[in-house]
Amino acid sequence: MSVNLSAPRVEDLLPVRGVRIGTAMAGVKKPGRRDVTVFELAPGSQVSAVFTRNRFCAAPVQVARKHVAAQKSSGGVRALVINTGNANAGTGEPGLAHTQQTCEALAALMGLSADQVLPFSTGVIMEPLPVDRIVAGLPAALKALVVGQDSGQAWAWAAEAIMTTDTLPKAVSRQIEIDGQRITVTGISKGAGMIHPNMATMLGYVATDAAVSSQVLDALTRSAANASFNRITIDGDTSTNDSFVVMATGQAGNPLISDAASPAGQQLGAALLAVSQHLAQSIVRDGEGATKFIEITVDGGQTEDECLRVAKAVAHSPLVKTAFFASDPNLGRILAAVGYAGIDDLDVSRVDLSLGDVDVVRSGGRLASYTEADGQRVMQPSDIRVHLHLHRGDASATVWTCDLSHDYVSINADYRS
Amino acid sequence: MSVNLSAPRVEDLLPVRGVRIGTAMAGVKKPGRRDVTVFELAPGSQVSAVFTRNRFCAAPVQVARKHVAAQKSSGGVRALVINTGNANAGTGEPGLAHTQQTCEALAALMGLSADQVLPFSTGVIMEPLPVDRIVAGLPAALKALVVGQDSGQAWAWAAEAIMTTDTLPKAVSRQIEIDGQRITVTGISKGAGMIHPNMATMLGYVATDAAVSSQVLDALTRSAANASFNRITIDGDTSTNDSFVVMATGQAGNPLISDAASPAGQQLGAALLAVSQHLAQSIVRDGEGATKFIEITVDGGQTEDECLRVAKAVAHSPLVKTAFFASDPNLGRILAAVGYAGIDDLDVSRVDLSLGDVDVVRSGGRLASYTEADGQRVMQPSDIRVHLHLHRGDASATVWTCDLSHDYVSINADYRS
Repeated sequence: MSVNLSAPRVEDLLPVRGVRIGTAMAGVKKPGRRDVTVFELAPGSQVSAVFTRNRFCAAPVQVARKHVAAQKSSGGVRALVINTGNANAGTGEPGLAHTQQTCEALAALMGLSADQVLPFSTGVIMEPLPVDRIVAGLPAALKALVVGQDSGQAWAWAAEAIMTTDTLPKAVSRQIEIDGQRITVTGISKGAGMIHPNMATMLGYVATDAAVSSQVLDALTRSAANASFNRITIDGDTSTNDSFVVMATGQAGNPLISDAASPAGQQLGAALLAVSQHLAQSIVRDGEGATKFIEITVDGGQTEDECLRVAKAVAHSPLVKTAFFASDPNLGRILAAVGYAGIDDLDVSRVDLSLGDVDVVRSGGRLASYTEADGQRVMQPSDIRVHLHLHRGDASATVWTCDLSHDYVSINADYRS
Repeated sequence: MSVNLSAPRVEDLLPVRGVRIGTAMAGVKKPGRRDVTVFELAPGSQVSAVFTRNRFCAAPVQVARKHVAAQKSSGGVRALVINTGNANAGTGEPGLAHTQQTCEALAALMGLSADQVLPFSTGVIMEPLPVDRIVAGLPAALKALVVGQDSGQAWAWAAEAIMTTDTLPKAVSRQIEIDGQRITVTGISKGAGMIHPNMATMLGYVATDAAVSSQVLDALTRSAANASFNRITIDGDTSTNDSFVVMATGQAGNPLISDAASPAGQQLGAALLAVSQHLAQSIVRDGEGATKFIEITVDGGQTEDECLRVAKAVAHSPLVKTAFFASDPNLGRILAAVGYAGIDDLDVSRVDLSLGDVDVVRSGGRLASYTEADGQRVMQPSDIRVHLHLHRGDASATVWTCDLSHDYVSINADYRS
């Protein structure tokens, strides 16, 4: 089940110059599905990435973080290898060795050094990585690469090859023009459960052919992650494997963007943000068991951080989420969540709440004009906007979440089996 | 559904000298059930209480907090009035007026001043309190009081009269001897959803006939709440109405306990704690949709607080909870929760995990000796112990929670209707 989400059309996915992608069926968890993906990046590409803050971060996260940091000395990141079916997390030293072995195998096949490869894994936690099957699948992935699937189709297959409990692949492209040059930004993401914003969330890969300095790319990546993947939540569980990677091949021919605040920097930032928000929201729309997509905006906070805390408290509340599932305007549950969001000096007698076009609460109490019929009506659509106003400042923030349904329980009670 | 919980037997509930209880059917939400309870306390009783930290705390919480604080000047708390069916929360100024009206009505009937009455409400949030029906029910509650139901039966009816989505009443008694005098401690609680420890949780009322100073009673109350109601979680939602009240009538004839650290103070504290833990654990055993009761102990932390943070992260994780529901040893989810509990310098390579008698993780990775069959076996019982060791200090903490089942979603998608 997903909420107003459809699979991307291949013809809408635009190749990015300097990026080639190959996928293979390696039988990581089960046979007959694409489960290994290789990205090849042209020499000179810049890579920025943000990773999970989970202390039990997976072996590939530890290695990828190190290889991103070493790109100046390693000759640059030239390849990514991603497997689904196994997260290689909670696997201790053997897990690290398996990741290293994967990087070395791909590097040997491509004529690179191992630290030019970024490894990623997603799937079940605490199972040993079937590294032999992954390594055995690499030549097929590279062969797919070599025959030139550097097209929208390759992106579409990659979007499919990184899925776990996702019901649909997630991918999107944008094009902009900077200094007369056409710049492409294309990305994919995966994720449906264990989704909770904390640095980066789930797997997201965005590539652009823009020429951009590493400093600017880092800044734009952090900023895009913060306003997209860090603003979504499905179940409040922060994954061990979250990674968001932005690759810039510099092949578009534009003058190097070396100032994030310049018009070109802002244009590129806006395109990255649009792609990232689309990918992040797609994850929520494909949330495990989701039947509703909910946008929660909090205005009138003293800081963006406190707006976020309130929005996330509402977004995380199982009681709020089950009420949305039932289309039941049991809206006092939203106020309860606002109340425990941790703003100690919140004056609840100034809080306003509306859903869609229906004003529900004014000055901390239910409006006399509010009717149960209006509440029922506004809870029906599959896309719902919740708006809170704290009336204590000028800051605001928006997060996206989904409801909590029987299918969430079924999916997570049955996963693995 | 509840987990190894049965209704208390009336003969096990011991009356507390100086406490009389009356209940009535006032039709607050629907007719034909006990929904209003009045406690009458003998003159000279001491009352301590802890309340929700939710900023959207209900009108009765605001008033009860004030009246508890004023007991030295008001002549002492002499009555409690509790209604189920409506929480009187998120109701603004009219809600406060309704609470005041309830206190005044009961005070007039009993010859007290309104500030000698503590009001409590539980039920749906943001609906206007049907104050007229509650006030109309008070004479019947007082009549039940007057005819002398100061017995176990009255406690049993009160336990029933404060229920909302609870499937079973919760009540327990303990007796101890202090300085040759028999002391009784009897308590009731309610709660099944919107359960998340933050100061006090849900409604809990404990009475004793011990003679104890107000300072000692305050200290013992905070300490009992902290190790009972503040250690349970069902869904992570902190209620607007949480209240935990301890009443001491001083009629047992023991010498006044004026030092919490004295042998008598420690004995009374232990009895209060035993009753509070029983009541708190009963709430978890009756958790909405619960099929499993889970005790999570974290040892080897640097502080109790960090042990609690880890235990609560595990206890709150919907992924962990659905795995318990499925009896599926998808135990990597527990490690993931440990990893995002917010201990920034946690060395995950030292973490151990066991379930019941099965060692699962040693030094951050799965033990070679661990088998899926052992995992399956230990996930079957309805009572399960999870044990984590962080190996970074000497502190420890335990919390209690339940699983997340289809019935949790059903109950909360349907509540109100």
